[in-house]
Amino acid sequence: MSQEEHDLKKVGLPPGTLIYTGKKGKGSVSIELISYNETFFEQKFISDHANIEQHLKPNAVNFISINGIHEVEKIEEIGQELGIHRLILEDILEVNQRPKVEIFDEYIFFTMKMLGLSKSKKKIHYEQVSAIMGENFVLLFQEQQGDIFDGIRERIEKNVGIIRRKGHDFLVYRLLDTVVDNYYIIADHLGKQLDRMETEIIEAPQDTHVSQLIEVKKQLMKLRRSIIPLKDSVSSLEKAQHPYIQKKNVPYFRDVLEHNIEVIEVMEVYRETVMSLIDLHTSLVSNQMNNIMKVLTIISSIFIPLSFIVGLYGMNFHYMPELTYKYGYFVILGVIALIILGMLYYFRKKKWL
Amino acid sequence: MSQEEHDLKKVGLPPGTLIYTGKKGKGSVSIELISYNETFFEQKFISDHANIEQHLKPNAVNFISINGIHEVEKIEEIGQELGIHRLILEDILEVNQRPKVEIFDEYIFFTMKMLGLSKSKKKIHYEQVSAIMGENFVLLFQEQQGDIFDGIRERIEKNVGIIRRKGHDFLVYRLLDTVVDNYYIIADHLGKQLDRMETEIIEAPQDTHVSQLIEVKKQLMKLRRSIIPLKDSVSSLEKAQHPYIQKKNVPYFRDVLEHNIEVIEVMEVYRETVMSLIDLHTSLVSNQMNNIMKVLTIISSIFIPLSFIVGLYGMNFHYMPELTYKYGYFVILGVIALIILGMLYYFRKKKWL
Amino acid sequence: MSQEEHDLKKVGLPPGTLIYTGKKGKGSVSIELISYNETFFEQKFISDHANIEQHLKPNAVNFISINGIHEVEKIEEIGQELGIHRLILEDILEVNQRPKVEIFDEYIFFTMKMLGLSKSKKKIHYEQVSAIMGENFVLLFQEQQGDIFDGIRERIEKNVGIIRRKGHDFLVYRLLDTVVDNYYIIADHLGKQLDRMETEIIEAPQDTHVSQLIEVKKQLMKLRRSIIPLKDSVSSLEKAQHPYIQKKNVPYFRDVLEHNIEVIEVMEVYRETVMSLIDLHTSLVSNQMNNIMKVLTIISSIFIPLSFIVGLYGMNFHYMPELTYKYGYFVILGVIALIILGMLYYFRKKKWL
Amino acid sequence: MSQEEHDLKKVGLPPGTLIYTGKKGKGSVSIELISYNETFFEQKFISDHANIEQHLKPNAVNFISINGIHEVEKIEEIGQELGIHRLILEDILEVNQRPKVEIFDEYIFFTMKMLGLSKSKKKIHYEQVSAIMGENFVLLFQEQQGDIFDGIRERIEKNVGIIRRKGHDFLVYRLLDTVVDNYYIIADHLGKQLDRMETEIIEAPQDTHVSQLIEVKKQLMKLRRSIIPLKDSVSSLEKAQHPYIQKKNVPYFRDVLEHNIEVIEVMEVYRETVMSLIDLHTSLVSNQMNNIMKVLTIISSIFIPLSFIVGLYGMNFHYMPELTYKYGYFVILGVIALIILGMLYYFRKKKWL
Amino acid sequence: MSQEEHDLKKVGLPPGTLIYTGKKGKGSVSIELISYNETFFEQKFISDHANIEQHLKPNAVNFISINGIHEVEKIEEIGQELGIHRLILEDILEVNQRPKVEIFDEYIFFTMKMLGLSKSKKKIHYEQVSAIMGENFVLLFQEQQGDIFDGIRERIEKNVGIIRRKGHDFLVYRLLDTVVDNYYIIADHLGKQLDRMETEIIEAPQDTHVSQLIEVKKQLMKLRRSIIPLKDSVSSLEKAQHPYIQKKNVPYFRDVLEHNIEVIEVMEVYRETVMSLIDLHTSLVSNQMNNIMKVLTIISSIFIPLSFIVGLYGMNFHYMPELTYKYGYFVILGVIALIILGMLYYFRKKKWL
Repeated sequence: MSQEEHDLKKVGLPPGTLIYTGKKGKGSVSIELISYNETFFEQKFISDHANIEQHLKPNAVNFISINGIHEVEKIEEIGQELGIHRLILEDILEVNQRPKVEIFDEYIFFTMKMLGLSKSKKKIHYEQVSAIMGENFVLLFQEQQGDIFDGIRERIEKNVGIIRRKGHDFLVYRLLDTVVDNYYIIADHLGKQLDRMETEIIEAPQDTHVSQLIEVKKQLMKLRRSIIPLKDSVSSLEKAQHPYIQKKNVPYFRDVLEHNIEVIEVMEVYRETVMSLIDLHTSLVSNQMNNIMKVLTIISSIFIPLSFIVGLYGMNFHYMPELTYKYGYFVILGVIALIILGMLYYFRKKKWL
Repeated sequence: MSQEEHDLKKVGLPPGTLIYTGKKGKGSVSIELISYNETFFEQKFISDHANIEQHLKPNAVNFISINGIHEVEKIEEIGQELGIHRLILEDILEVNQRPKVEIFDEYIFFTMKMLGLSKSKKKIHYEQVSAIMGENFVLLFQEQQGDIFDGIRERIEKNVGIIRRKGHDFLVYRLLDTVVDNYYIIADHLGKQLDRMETEIIEAPQDTHVSQLIEVKKQLMKLRRSIIPLKDSVSSLEKAQHPYIQKKNVPYFRDVLEHNIEVIEVMEVYRETVMSLIDLHTSLVSNQMNNIMKVLTIISSIFIPLSFIVGLYGMNFHYMPELTYKYGYFVILGVIALIILGMLYYFRKKKWL
Repeated sequence: MSQEEHDLKKVGLPPGTLIYTGKKGKGSVSIELISYNETFFEQKFISDHANIEQHLKPNAVNFISINGIHEVEKIEEIGQELGIHRLILEDILEVNQRPKVEIFDEYIFFTMKMLGLSKSKKKIHYEQVSAIMGENFVLLFQEQQGDIFDGIRERIEKNVGIIRRKGHDFLVYRLLDTVVDNYYIIADHLGKQLDRMETEIIEAPQDTHVSQLIEVKKQLMKLRRSIIPLKDSVSSLEKAQHPYIQKKNVPYFRDVLEHNIEVIEVMEVYRETVMSLIDLHTSLVSNQMNNIMKVLTIISSIFIPLSFIVGLYGMNFHYMPELTYKYGYFVILGVIALIILGMLYYFRKKKWL
Repeated sequence: MSQEEHDLKKVGLPPGTLIYTGKKGKGSVSIELISYNETFFEQKFISDHANIEQHLKPNAVNFISINGIHEVEKIEEIGQELGIHRLILEDILEVNQRPKVEIFDEYIFFTMKMLGLSKSKKKIHYEQVSAIMGENFVLLFQEQQGDIFDGIRERIEKNVGIIRRKGHDFLVYRLLDTVVDNYYIIADHLGKQLDRMETEIIEAPQDTHVSQLIEVKKQLMKLRRSIIPLKDSVSSLEKAQHPYIQKKNVPYFRDVLEHNIEVIEVMEVYRETVMSLIDLHTSLVSNQMNNIMKVLTIISSIFIPLSFIVGLYGMNFHYMPELTYKYGYFVILGVIALIILGMLYYFRKKKWL
Repeated sequence: MSQEEHDLKKVGLPPGTLIYTGKKGKGSVSIELISYNETFFEQKFISDHANIEQHLKPNAVNFISINGIHEVEKIEEIGQELGIHRLILEDILEVNQRPKVEIFDEYIFFTMKMLGLSKSKKKIHYEQVSAIMGENFVLLFQEQQGDIFDGIRERIEKNVGIIRRKGHDFLVYRLLDTVVDNYYIIADHLGKQLDRMETEIIEAPQDTHVSQLIEVKKQLMKLRRSIIPLKDSVSSLEKAQHPYIQKKNVPYFRDVLEHNIEVIEVMEVYRETVMSLIDLHTSLVSNQMNNIMKVLTIISSIFIPLSFIVGLYGMNFHYMPELTYKYGYFVILGVIALIILGMLYYFRKKKWL
């Protein structure tokens, strides 16, 4: 189902109607809460989502992960419980939402695309990840139970690095950073694909290469649409001077921004590379055609005149003096040899041989 | 009649002359008034358009729809009654008006293009929709009795959703949103067309594909000219801080803006896709020519030298020793077989076979 | 004479020297003064240009048209009489002046290009129109007696519309509007030319089409250079808040600006269309070549092997068993028929037939 | 020696070392001083450059021209005498300096490129011209004794125009204006070259045309790099509000700016023209190839089948009934004529003839 | 190892972990301290890096060079000693860091790419150079013991030029300037490569040229990514008004900025040149194909009809009157000669010969 078809689901519907536009997820929606601070760590699964707020620990970072967003009512109730605006809930459920950040007084909302490679490494799948940062919680929405953020959870649990000493803003930074880091893997995958295609094209340009290149270009254009808005988002987050983001942690967000710009630049280079490879393909096919033409021309140019000559002496005129000369045949063989040598010399001079 | 021809109608005419530049509509212009608030709903058709103001209800949203704008005098009288500037009326009647918003103290005027597919789905037709938001009315002008806004009217009547609880600004938002949502359908249609053409081109590139692609590109360029100005319009509406637009409803307008940007981005991707498909077409045709050349070259290269050889022994020289050898004919057959095999080996080595 | 050659006339000359760089006009320069207000209208030709100021009526709009600017001394004297800066006079006489507006305290100067089609409709000719708006006059300079503004003069005389009720600023607006409206005619002409060429190219692409398209592109680029600066000019006029332009008339100037932007957008679309048509041409020529190649390949591939076969049995070897078989000839005819059918089947399978 | 090689001269050298990077000039450096005001004129050559300041006249414009800048010590001493910063002296001597203006309190420095055509009109040579405007002098540095500014000197001497009545700022304007006017000549030269090439290409596209066009494009790109920075320079000069530039003379600088923009636009048009001509060339070569293919295909398609037919009756089968028919030969001649006519009809229908 | 692979090393790792992402350097990290002022010079190697601060001289410029950054712990300890932020240390060790400047109150950090040519002059290698300017030191980090800055060290030691009279800011300027000057060498190298390829292509376009050109374009794009961010960096340094940078030294930084812009412009020109050369290559290959086609067409067009004629008289019909004419053979020879001459005349008229 294309992105446009997804969007069609909602055409004509009034705003404020919560509708999940993604694929129907398997299993039920699970809610995981990790509360931690420098000295404390607790992980539990919450089943009574309507009372989620009671589970939040004060003086701790409360990291709520909601895996699966296809049960619209649950999402709605959680939203009401935590005072999330209806339009924000709509954006969370709309899996084709453009990446963006919205900054409110009570919370910061951001949504972005998490990219992954299919197992055959041929397709890039897009998952929407949304997060809301409130005063005492970070709420993470994923379409599917993802393992991408497990590294963060593990580091929190095992108290590796500085994350346990930091607040909600640092957790948000880690989420953003993980998503952007993930883009490098996709970029790297596309880069390798282009390198491989370049080698293949130089070796033997095929019909299918151009459509493959156009496919890569389409993926790059789709990626751009996911990544470029994120740049603006992170940038506005960095500049927001929101009380929830400590000034000393701003450099971390700037760091994410830089990585994001880096990925965009790499994408841009790949886009240009695709165009160059199409040019290369055209040029090589044209060269090949040139070589084919040379072979045809050399052989035709040598043998068509010779065929005329031997045809000439195959005529049945009663009176053709040359035919009766004893050495006529050998003279003609000599002439033929001379023509062949002359032609070869001419083509060598023209550098066709 | 092209857009440029339309515009020609007015060249040389002084400003302030009200002229309808669209197609002559059928039937007479109808005026429908829907007045509603949370508790109240009334729908009626107004015939004495000169006294339209008397029909407006206080403390209610007054939604006036004018279907058909070809009766210039009616429009003029309605305009005078409601205190609309002459130049605004001109813009309403000029069906090739660029989409725009004009913000005055007493009212907000905006005009935009509503797109539709013809029944054969081959053409996109453009209808101009203008609206004026006054203090106690929303005035909607359509070229034809459209059914696109019927969904809104129904929701008002049946009190579905929040529209009955909201004011004039929310109604305006719903009108804008409906038009922009409609663009997705057109975008989707063009996207499917491009997908189908890509499949066709990869299968068998035809002469006509390039002109079809250029046709799509033209449509995209025409669409751009309708949609891009709308972006600026909605953006200026969002930022206007006009007393008629409540601050709490601004996010709705921002939402429309985002959808509009989304459509523009999709259009941009389609434009690039058109260019890529033209490249693909060229490349495939060129490949095909390459293959044709290969067949010609292989057959010519094998048989032209052979024709020379058999022509050689078709000569009528009286003294040609080979002709009298008993196995001469079979030796020649062997030589011919060797040449064929040698050529085939050469072409296989060159990967032409 | 190209624009660049015109400009060369002035290279090396000091500034402040008044030189007319256009074609020598026919006849002498005529000066027409129309004075009007709501109740009053007077039209006269002025011969004593040195005392032009005495002819101006107070409490009226004084519209002075100077037709022909090749008599440099006259222009100089009029300029001195009305207090126009020498550099402005220079700009008026320099027919290759870039369109611009210059706003001074005492007057507003603007110069622009008026475009016209030659009678054969093949060439676009450019005429420079300059105007100066003083406190109690509007001074219009045209290279030739133009009829484009006659519509305005007629409306003033016959008191049609609102022009007699308005001041100098409205007259200036009408002049600008007339020029910009005129651009639509040119745009329309080019658009029709492109439509016609598209039809022709699809039907049968010719050698000359590409050079014609490049010609159109050159015209578009020249037009752009005339029209784009006008946009900035009108825009600065709109924003100038000059006492000579009443605030209530500013929307009129904004209207001209919008029309101008519209024309520029149309031009941009045409420019893209030119590029697309060149692509279309290339693609069609390439397709045609493909078809020619197919014919050649089909015929060669069928008959060259057959020629070899018949040549084989035209050899004069004394011992060729097949020749003596009674049905040898008919067997060969059968083989030939089989080869033809086989080839045709192969080409049909390859979709070349 | 290319620009890059020039620049290499200085790589690794510390700043502040004065090095002349241009060609070694002939003869020694000459210093000419023209002092003038409305009533006074004096011209002399100065040999004791170390005391140059003593020669300056008060209440007059002092125009010092330094022809040749290869004697670095002289330049250094003059610089010290007049209080010029070492970095400025470096810029003057660095002939590959990007055009720029630097505005200080005590003086205004600007450097630009003066372009000239070589005698064969094939090459454009670049000369660096720098000028320093102090309170009571204008100091002009030229690589070679140029004649381009002689027109100005003559007008000063003969008191033509208004230059003697104006101050240092007007002189600076005249210098700038002369250089920019000169660009028109180069632009005109390139324009004529492109026109000539267009005619040639349409007549008969040659191998060498494309490399010539690329050569013109390279020149245009080099020109751009000289002219575009000048635009910014003149613009900053116009806006500087420096006490040395009188407000009433600002319009003169704006005039130079406009001319500069004009030249840049012309260059841009030429650049597009180059691209169009390459397209035209490709298209014409492709058309030519098409025509060659047609000739080949027509002749091959007619005669290859005929050769088969006559070969058929050249076979030596003992039993070929047709050979003994009395009119066999004439029937065959008839068949051949029919095939030729049929083929011609087919090709005419295909519009290849 | 490509840049993307480098970056992959860090994906998923938490921030704040110091990891060197470059190649493992040879030998151990060496720390050199040069302290100097106008009268004093001292150079020593420091082994107890943990107490580096004690070695710094007051009232002198302390220039610390750290050669090799692969010993992460050393770098970490030096950073702690001098109070450098952990994220900065990370940037120093991340050899794929985008060039940037970060301005803090206590120090200014900047990192950039130093480019070098491999010995075979075929590859450009990138080395990361970072520097930190504190109140009383300049700390330089290089991946390898580089000799590029030895010129600066020598000038300091031998007291050449003004460097001993200047402060830390001038030293920083000299470092920046040396790196940017070095870019000219790379630019020059690529320029020469393009010139050589142009000559080669014009002489004989090869298959490999296009892939070589695409290789150069890739290098240019990679260079751009190193050089363009430096422009912003130097620009922000110039504008920073940081107390460590004296106002009178700002022009030096502006100078570096200009050189940097110059290199970027040269790169841009080279990029366009690459595109032009690909066009040239395509055009020349196409011309060559055209010439090959001409040869084929001329020879085929002459000899294929002749082969038909001689084939005609090789037919074995019993009754063919021409065969018995005494001069039949010579008439045919005449006809053949006429056809050849006619064809040659036709081709000459078509300018194919």
